[in-house]
Amino acid sequence: MLGREYGQICSLARTLEVLGERWTLLIIRDVFSRRRRFDQIQESLGIARNVLAARLAWLVEEGILEKRRYREHPPRYEYLLTEKGLELWPVMISMLHWGDRHLSDGAPPLLVRHKGCEGLVDDRGICERCGERLEARSAYTEAGPGAPAQLREADAA
Amino acid sequence: MLGREYGQICSLARTLEVLGERWTLLIIRDVFSRRRRFDQIQESLGIARNVLAARLAWLVEEGILEKRRYREHPPRYEYLLTEKGLELWPVMISMLHWGDRHLSDGAPPLLVRHKGCEGLVDDRGICERCGERLEARSAYTEAGPGAPAQLREADAA
Repeated sequence: MLGREYGQICSLARTLEVLGERWTLLIIRDVFSRRRRFDQIQESLGIARNVLAARLAWLVEEGILEKRRYREHPPRYEYLLTEKGLELWPVMISMLHWGDRHLSDGAPPLLVRHKGCEGLVDDRGICERCGERLEARSAYTEAGPGAPAQLREADAA
Repeated sequence: MLGREYGQICSLARTLEVLGERWTLLIIRDVFSRRRRFDQIQESLGIARNVLAARLAWLVEEGILEKRRYREHPPRYEYLLTEKGLELWPVMISMLHWGDRHLSDGAPPLLVRHKGCEGLVDDRGICERCGERLEARSAYTEAGPGAPAQLREADAA
């Protein structure tokens, strides 16, 4: 991965050394979206299996994902976010909102809501309705107006 | 650049298509830190001049930076953040804080403060002291405990 390539005394550069490789943040997004198994993530992203395997191993090594066996015979594994990984939620949310605002023609494909009151979550991870400062575990997502029609219908069902 | 490589109906993927290329977010960080001229950014990052030129042209094309002539004879240019670029501030802040927390041994190299009350800015871009929700223009930075000694001394002077 990028390793110490940037070589800077800067926490933003250090974050990018861990997360800045192509696909890495989308893999983390997938795990946030409950795609936890290798084949689910591979299908979602359509990337080469060896690239995905390398990225997942890196994220486990960095303590962002945890690999857990969910079946014994034959052994099968899934990936879960650690606390360190869950703390990337504000990064995800701020990038998502910037894309909504500037790259999605006013039609967000995904809406993020507060589990408590169903209010929309703003770009700071704060509930627009009740003002609560949220963490990953207190939010859920649903298809937005920019989602493909079949996803919107599935959410409405 | 990444172009439509990710090919996903997702605002986070779209954001990464614009910003996910290596160095791009560090170039934006530099402009946030008032390194606005080609040579300043090149010296700060130590990247190849042709790579920097390509990234800057891309960021101008995407409407994130604006190129402005600041001297006529000979012509000299600097790069400024547009409103669209300034709205990346919450992304910068959340990545910076995650790196502070997990990758900088409890000694942040950079502190971000609210211009109004000098309170520290939290990972959501909110002032820890007065609770104001801040934007890029209402914050300033100073060397933190993890900065190289010469920077800390320069800030204290």
